[in-house]
This record gives sequence, structure tokens and C-alpha cells, in this order.
Amino acid sequence: MLRLSSNDPGFAEAFARVVADRRESAVDVAADVAAILKDVRERGDAALAELTAKFDGHDLDQSGWQVDAETCRKAFDNLDPTLRAALELAAERIRAYHEAQLPEDRDYTDSAGVRLGATWRAVDAAGLYVPGGRAAYPSSMLMNAIPARVAGVERLVVVTPTPKGEVNPLVLAAAHLAGVDEVWRVGGAHAVGALAYGTQRISPVDVITGPGNAWVAEAKRQLYGVVGIDMVAGPSEILVIADAQNDARRIAADLLSQAEHDPTSQSILITDDKTFADAVAEAVEVELSALHTQATARASWETNGVIIDVAGFDEAPSLANALAAEHVEIATDDPEALMRQIRHAGSVFLGRMTPEAVGDYVAGPNHVLPTGRRARFSSGLSVLDFMKRTSFIQLDEAALDAIGPAAVALADAEGLPAHARSISVRLGQ
Amino acid sequence: MLRLSSNDPGFAEAFARVVADRRESAVDVAADVAAILKDVRERGDAALAELTAKFDGHDLDQSGWQVDAETCRKAFDNLDPTLRAALELAAERIRAYHEAQLPEDRDYTDSAGVRLGATWRAVDAAGLYVPGGRAAYPSSMLMNAIPARVAGVERLVVVTPTPKGEVNPLVLAAAHLAGVDEVWRVGGAHAVGALAYGTQRISPVDVITGPGNAWVAEAKRQLYGVVGIDMVAGPSEILVIADAQNDARRIAADLLSQAEHDPTSQSILITDDKTFADAVAEAVEVELSALHTQATARASWETNGVIIDVAGFDEAPSLANALAAEHVEIATDDPEALMRQIRHAGSVFLGRMTPEAVGDYVAGPNHVLPTGRRARFSSGLSVLDFMKRTSFIQLDEAALDAIGPAAVALADAEGLPAHARSISVRLGQ
Repeated sequence: MLRLSSNDPGFAEAFARVVADRRESAVDVAADVAAILKDVRERGDAALAELTAKFDGHDLDQSGWQVDAETCRKAFDNLDPTLRAALELAAERIRAYHEAQLPEDRDYTDSAGVRLGATWRAVDAAGLYVPGGRAAYPSSMLMNAIPARVAGVERLVVVTPTPKGEVNPLVLAAAHLAGVDEVWRVGGAHAVGALAYGTQRISPVDVITGPGNAWVAEAKRQLYGVVGIDMVAGPSEILVIADAQNDARRIAADLLSQAEHDPTSQSILITDDKTFADAVAEAVEVELSALHTQATARASWETNGVIIDVAGFDEAPSLANALAAEHVEIATDDPEALMRQIRHAGSVFLGRMTPEAVGDYVAGPNHVLPTGRRARFSSGLSVLDFMKRTSFIQLDEAALDAIGPAAVALADAEGLPAHARSISVRLGQ
Repeated sequence: MLRLSSNDPGFAEAFARVVADRRESAVDVAADVAAILKDVRERGDAALAELTAKFDGHDLDQSGWQVDAETCRKAFDNLDPTLRAALELAAERIRAYHEAQLPEDRDYTDSAGVRLGATWRAVDAAGLYVPGGRAAYPSSMLMNAIPARVAGVERLVVVTPTPKGEVNPLVLAAAHLAGVDEVWRVGGAHAVGALAYGTQRISPVDVITGPGNAWVAEAKRQLYGVVGIDMVAGPSEILVIADAQNDARRIAADLLSQAEHDPTSQSILITDDKTFADAVAEAVEVELSALHTQATARASWETNGVIIDVAGFDEAPSLANALAAEHVEIATDDPEALMRQIRHAGSVFLGRMTPEAVGDYVAGPNHVLPTGRRARFSSGLSVLDFMKRTSFIQLDEAALDAIGPAAVALADAEGLPAHARSISVRLGQ
């Protein structure tokens, strides 16, 4: 863990190094992934079967290519009732938040008599990548599938690796609850390729979302343009801005809630009180010792954790904007005043009773958020990722008379006579 | 030009071939571009100067790295008054349409007492790529720069190659009108790299938009995630759906307005009248002979043009949805009835008096639209491409009591104890 003080000489340089460190995988898998995608495109299911046998150690013809709807329903029914109710509450709240996000169509006629508008429609089909193993989270299934459903996507397809053929019942239960249409037992870059190009068994989709390892991320990047994709995701991050009125244990727990995701995760505290900073550092050690995820959380905290004390919270917004963090928690007396000055953040958690983890599960907003300073230019997952907008224009004779001649002048200036002609032939010229 | 009849045997296969033909450059420039980007990232301005000398044949230290604001203003003042007025009308109408597009923030408290919302903000800086040579269009400058300005982007940077140092006065005039802040005389993949990484002279931007050749497109694709980018664009397309009540000359002009862009452009007519189909085919020949862009337009029409006659317009929507064309013109008695059934299109032009070219210049909606069937999942350029959304959540004690336990249950089930702890420590457990 790195301790910084904003009035130390050398603070600007040390902070700039924190900002510049993206903690992202530098492993170059581009060529491997390109070869896999080419193989899936050319050979379809035969390539999927071979690669699944190789990487996941099972034979799709034996284990079954799909997990059927009945299996998902049973997984849901067999959940512990408390957990089932929790999943239902989460689904309901995520649905409500994303329904309020649905964009409105426009249709109006302006003063020149030109009718203008835009219509939003869902994509026909969406594919969700669900990782196997440690990162297979039912909450991620809900956070990806429900916005797609709310957007109006007709066909919702999940691909997920099932190493040795084993499925994750929690993930299947979430798939049932979210109303997923197909669950395919394939993972890796080849599964992403199958979703984009289609195979004999799997029909292609229009948009692919969901987290994955370096191969999956690179496959999505290479297929960007063949399909739509969500933003490439990096390690999770939290920035906590907290004053000394907080309980140090609570702030320590908040910092560790991101640290436990992965050794590359990053937790940063900004406080205006050096003594409180010390108390949080101590509390982190106490909290760590109680976690069964201690090894991961400790690796993250020791390597990437940062505590910064500042002379006053007026220094915090510029630091927060430079970090452009995925999660920003503001535990101060007037969190709103700080939020107004923070331009770049994935999601903001206001006040002392809003630990980031409520946003991971049940608050309603999406937990798929921009990482690695991408909040400077990108947004969390939303219904808009599963929709597209068609603009429309309608002129009558009077409207064309009003604005057509200007278009003719511009088309002539650009050296595009057929553009000009398509208008002038209607102006009777 | 390909003539098809929907009641011919073999129509389905022939049409599927039209849909599958993406007409996009297959040249693999990935390795070249990666090397150029690495060079710009490591050596900054020195790399830009060398590559500009090599590709554009001028010395940036002699010609000047930037075109200054005064030069742009003079280019605008020196425009022919008719052209200046046309450019002003276009700018004003584009601005009005995009202002109506600005998204609304949300802030509400739900029945569980949870305050939820989302705030939209502009990115800090946007970079616009403006090609040199044939494709340097003032209308493109307006269509890229004005949405960025309307979104609230503070710093708007143009990069444009100036072969032999020569600038395009029309483009500079449009830059002045759109309120561009910086115009750099650099182009190619290296200019895109400079915008993304920054150099000694050029500060980095957050989003890069604008058309370019295969190198520019590949540079944007490789930098996706370092910055935000607009959709990768392919050759232009128009689908015209027209009945026999139209003047064949007008429809021919509309088809040629896209054909004249590039030999790889595609123009398709769907009509319910074979005689009208013949008349349009003849009119295209007549129109072609009058165009100074005849060579390009003819190459496009002969190679990629298609005329399809259908038994009735009820067949048109499924064909249009399969094509998912950039531009769809509907010149029938009830264009709205067809539009309602067309789910995938970049922009729709309704009625007999709405030639597509009015949308290229003065109608108001953006002319940067998805090509190559990408209207299935992506939208035209808008203010949203220059903005991002931050969600926020605020709970008080009662709200945390209401929804916190469900989050604890889910965190436990996912094996994330620090997530659970950050909530339970506030529930007093």
C-alpha cells in the first residue's frame, strides 16, 4: 500500500504514476485469437467441439451442447429460499432502474416544414458471455441480461464454459430468472466467434456483452464492427473519499470489497485527516485477517492500494477526475457538493450508508462500469447498448423549396453533381 | 447492375449473396498501423514530422504544425455569399436537431427509499479526423464538430493531412463555423495515434470520430478502449423503395447520388412495377452521361447496383431488414406504413420529395450513419458519442436495512465476504 500526502514534495509525480498505471494484461493474444476466430468462422461447430475438448476437457456431443430451460428452472427452484428472494429482489430493482432508462422516440415538424425524428429499436439478438470458474457471478448474469430484455431484445443467448462439463447452478438460476433463451456450453474466444459469425447450431447475434479473460476481451475487440460490443473491461477499482467522522472499519471494508476481486484490483482512499488515514490502514489489516479471500485482497491492497491525505476536500475533485474511477464513494457531510465537481466516474455512492457493494447487487443501476480511466469517455452498461436509433426525414414541396437550394449549393461545392441533381430535379430546375 | 425478380427461382440465393457482400477493404494493415502507433507513442512529434514528410511531402516546421484560427476565419469570410449562407443554414439546422437530442439527467427516490439517478456529461476533448483529397467535405466537418459542441465538449481538435502543405479552404471555413479549437496539419494513422496518446505539442483527446482510409480506420479500431471512437465506416449505400407513380429520372438521380461517392458504394432499388424498373434503368444511363463523376458512379452502378422487382411492397420490409442499409428512401403513397416495419436502417427518407441528399447537408440529422449492415446494432453519430453517463446511488439507514440483507446473501453466495462485510458492518451485525 502506498501512502501519499498532497503537501509532500513530489506528490504530483507520485500521483501521476498512480494514474498512469493501468494494471492491465500486457499479454499479446491477438494472433492466437485471430487464428481461433478464423477457424470458427470457417469450420463452425466442428471447431467449437475441438476447442471445447481441448480447453474445457469435455465432449459437447456427450455433455450436450446446450443447458436446457428445464435445468435452469430447476436450479432456480432448488435455491435456498433466502437466496432466491435476494435474487428476485435484485432482478426486480435492476429491471425498474433500466426501464426508466428507455429512450423516447422523437417526431416533430420544424418551422421550415421539415418533419424530423428518430426511432429507437432493440437489436434482434444479444449474446452474453458468462465466464466459468471464479468470476461466474449470478449478479453479472442479471446485470447483462435484464437490460437486454428491457430494451426489447427478442433472442438472448448465453455462452459459458463448463470445465469438465460442470455447470454453476447459481448462474443457471439467474439465467432462468432473467429469461435467457439459450445457454450454450462453450467459452473462450471461440464462443465469442460463434456468437458473431454463427455456426450450424448457433445463430449469430447482433451485440455481445459480458466479462471474460484476455482471450475473450481480444475476441470482442477484433469482432467490433461485425457485432456491437460493450466496453473492454479491466480490473475493478474503487476510490473512497471519506472524512474522519466515518467508522474506520466500514471504510476499510469498502476498500477491501474491491480488493478481493483480483490481485490487479485497486482501492484508493482520499481523506482530509492523517489520523483517520492511519486508523483505516490499521482496520484494513484487522478486516483482512477475517476474510477467506484474504490472499487475493491482500495482494491487491499491498500492490495497488493507495491512501492519500489531502489538506482539504477541495483538492479531491481534481484527483478524482484524473483517476476517473469505476466506483467513487463519497462519505462526507455534503457528498453532493463533491459529486457535482466530479466529472469522470462510472458510478458514485453518496453518503455514509451507501457501501459500493449495494450497487453490485441490489441498488438497480448497472454494475458493468468503465474501468482503467475509461469513465472519461464511456458509460456503464444500459438499455442503449442493446438498442439503436434510426433517424427519419420527410419533406413536402414547400420544405424542399425552402432548404433544397442550400443543399444544391453545398453538393456543387463538394463536387458531387448527382447529389445536387437529385434535389434540383425535384425543384423543377 | 444486377436485375432480380422476387418470383424468380433462385431469388433467395441471389439476394443472400447481395446481403453477404460487404464490399469492404480486405487489405490487412494491422501490423503497419500497430508499428506506426507504437512509434508515435514513443517518439511523439518527431515521429509525426517524419511520417508527414514521408506521406504528405511537407516539412511541418516549415509549413507550420497548425492552421491558425485567423486563416480559418478568412477562409469563411472569403466564401461566395451563396455558399456561405448555405453552410450557415446547414450548421443552424444540424445544431437544432442535435440540441433536441441532449439526454436528460435522472434523480429520484424509489419506494424503498433509495435515491437513484444518472448524470450525463460531455467528454473533455474530442478529436475529429478530416481526410485530405477527394473525401474532404465541409459537410462532414459540420456533422462531426457540431454534435461535439452541442454535447458541451470544451476542446475540439481537428487533424487533417495537407498533401504538399495545401489546405482545403472549404474545410477550413467549416471548421471556423463549427467553432473548432485546433487544426493540426497531420493525417493518417499517426495523426490518430497523436490524438489518442498525445505528443509534446498535441494534448490527448477522449473521443476520436470522423472518416478515413483503411489505415485511419484500423488505427481507430486498435485505439478503441484507449479512447472512445465512432463506428468503423464502410462504403456508402442507399436502398430506394419506389412505386411507379414516381418520376424515373428522380429515382435514378437518387440512386446515383450514392453511386458517385466511390466505386464500392451500392445503390439498390426495390419496386413493385417491372416497367418502372426498366424506366429507372434507362434513366440511370441518361443521368450518368451528364455527370462529371460519371466514371465513379458508373463503376459503382455496374458493379454493385441492384434493381429488384417484387410482387408487392409487403415483401419490401424483410428485404430492407436483411440489408440494414445506411440510407432507405421510401417513395410510395404511404411511406410511413413501410417505415414502421423496417427495423434496421441508418436513416429513413419519407415520401417522394425527400431525396437522400437533403439529409447529407441541410435536413439536420447526422449524415454519419452505420454502413455494411451495422444498422442492425449501431446508430448514426449523435451528441451521445461525445457524452458519458455517471450513475449514482444514495441510501440512508432505513434504505440499507430494506435492501442490504439481500445484497449480503448474494455476496456470500458469490464467495465475496468483503462485499458482504461492507454492508453488514453498517447493519450493526
